[in-house]
Amino acid sequence: MRTEFEFINHIKKKYSLDFVGDDCAVLPKDDKTDLLMTSDLLIEDIDFRLNWTEPELLGYKSLAVSLSDVAAMGGKPGWAMLALGVPQRLWSSDFMDRFYEGWHSLASEHGVDVAGGDISRSPDRLVVDSVVGGEVERGRAALRSGANVGDAIFVTGFLGGAAGGLRLLEAGARFDDSLSASARHLLLRQLQPISQTRTASVIQDYSLASSMIDVSDGLSSDLRHLVTASGVGAAIFADAIPIDPAMNEFPLFADDAFHLAMNGGEDFELLLTVAQDNVATALDLGFHKIGEITPNVGIIEVIRDGRAEILQPKGYRHF
Amino acid sequence: MRTEFEFINHIKKKYSLDFVGDDCAVLPKDDKTDLLMTSDLLIEDIDFRLNWTEPELLGYKSLAVSLSDVAAMGGKPGWAMLALGVPQRLWSSDFMDRFYEGWHSLASEHGVDVAGGDISRSPDRLVVDSVVGGEVERGRAALRSGANVGDAIFVTGFLGGAAGGLRLLEAGARFDDSLSASARHLLLRQLQPISQTRTASVIQDYSLASSMIDVSDGLSSDLRHLVTASGVGAAIFADAIPIDPAMNEFPLFADDAFHLAMNGGEDFELLLTVAQDNVATALDLGFHKIGEITPNVGIIEVIRDGRAEILQPKGYRHF
Repeated sequence: MRTEFEFINHIKKKYSLDFVGDDCAVLPKDDKTDLLMTSDLLIEDIDFRLNWTEPELLGYKSLAVSLSDVAAMGGKPGWAMLALGVPQRLWSSDFMDRFYEGWHSLASEHGVDVAGGDISRSPDRLVVDSVVGGEVERGRAALRSGANVGDAIFVTGFLGGAAGGLRLLEAGARFDDSLSASARHLLLRQLQPISQTRTASVIQDYSLASSMIDVSDGLSSDLRHLVTASGVGAAIFADAIPIDPAMNEFPLFADDAFHLAMNGGEDFELLLTVAQDNVATALDLGFHKIGEITPNVGIIEVIRDGRAEILQPKGYRHF
Repeated sequence: MRTEFEFINHIKKKYSLDFVGDDCAVLPKDDKTDLLMTSDLLIEDIDFRLNWTEPELLGYKSLAVSLSDVAAMGGKPGWAMLALGVPQRLWSSDFMDRFYEGWHSLASEHGVDVAGGDISRSPDRLVVDSVVGGEVERGRAALRSGANVGDAIFVTGFLGGAAGGLRLLEAGARFDDSLSASARHLLLRQLQPISQTRTASVIQDYSLASSMIDVSDGLSSDLRHLVTASGVGAAIFADAIPIDPAMNEFPLFADDAFHLAMNGGEDFELLLTVAQDNVATALDLGFHKIGEITPNVGIIEVIRDGRAEILQPKGYRHF
């Protein structure tokens, strides 16, 4: 069966949709500015479970995932719309007020105007679509397609934490005061991810990124999107992957912390390629250098102990 | 229990959301242009039933409802995004291709660029969110709040047909070649509604509308939204309501065609108020004059045989 990525490519070709395929759509706004637009649909029991989170955290995350798409293009978010499909049981409770409080708190934090939305009834499961509009200097949106052979590959922060948090939730951990600091950190990576909006702004100020994407499906998948769009390949150094150190404290992750960092989604760090002239700046900013763009089109190699292994994509996909 | 309109008003006041509450959000674009944005969420078994429609028609309607919001502000649609939550059973069939064909055909018809979207898996029910962005001359968006006492009230076309089509579907009619022309018309009013995009453009050219909204929830509800936003009242002449003539042919509607025209939703005609100086123009354009704006704040009277009755809102609401 085709994946959602295959379907999107099929539709893109069939209907010549040139705007489609990056983290945000880029549309001309005026002489100086391009408009960025993104829409992220989250559906109960697929993208979240209500008994694993709090309404405020879910509201926050619903907006954060879309803010992350704007950050991934090097943009600044400006306004947002919230469309909700709400089952009766949640409508009758204090859920809506608490969810909206979380959503709005993040909007306020980033100076994002609430521009409207839609409320519909849903038969049984909560549905959330956060639409965010942002801006970027004209022609300067960071695309997936700009990576050049020889560029260094960086991520802005630790990976695997969100997937680790998900594992803890699956094992029965719940977000409450009894958690250790490390467990709390991992659960919050999953339940209240931070969009790299300010980091993206720094990256743009220094013109650091030749290409960029956010790590939402998982490093292995998102890097594949990037190399495919750029028509290049990549080599990743296994030892350089910045595995979230909080995972060290849990025997649960002893065997697969690396797997989670490579393939676990939802860390919402930025994955970017940087021309060699700018590598020192990226290192100064504390970003993690994890590899290099190669001419082996479509191939991602993982280098460990001097040996290269071809990477199979194992990140999240819906179909 | 509070309705969705009460919740939105509560949130608007609590967080001072000045942008929220019209058919579209209005955001400044440049010196000459405002941006219009709308998002409409449709959920299976609440907003549509898959065995009552065809994938192409559903795709078409999913976009039409959002185009209608742009028309209701007097705007011209420019681009759209489509977010889909898809259950496995539909993903495995030809549903997606057929749905997208219908959605894209309407986008093409209006010159709307497809700007992107999102695909997610849904556990069991199809979820569709169509986001549309449009433009309107700066400061000239037709708001719900502009009606003045003495303005005439117009609708751009016949009402009740979409609700009549829904009744036929509920009674077992299905969209196929065996239908009579009238039944086919009513089913298409429900299944493939027409956004009044070109009509809205004419209304703007003549500066006809002091206020405007689309008839999506039902005339009684949408007129209430309009008089509430404008701080006025309205008197409607029962005999002037343009009931869809196709309903005459069905004994099923003998007793309640008027009720369906007043309270049935989804006709997606435009409801507008027109200053007396412009009434002749509106009549020349073939619009239906149905009443007048009054100073009785928040009160809608229905005048029949010279007697006034206070209207209770009976249009669609989710909660």
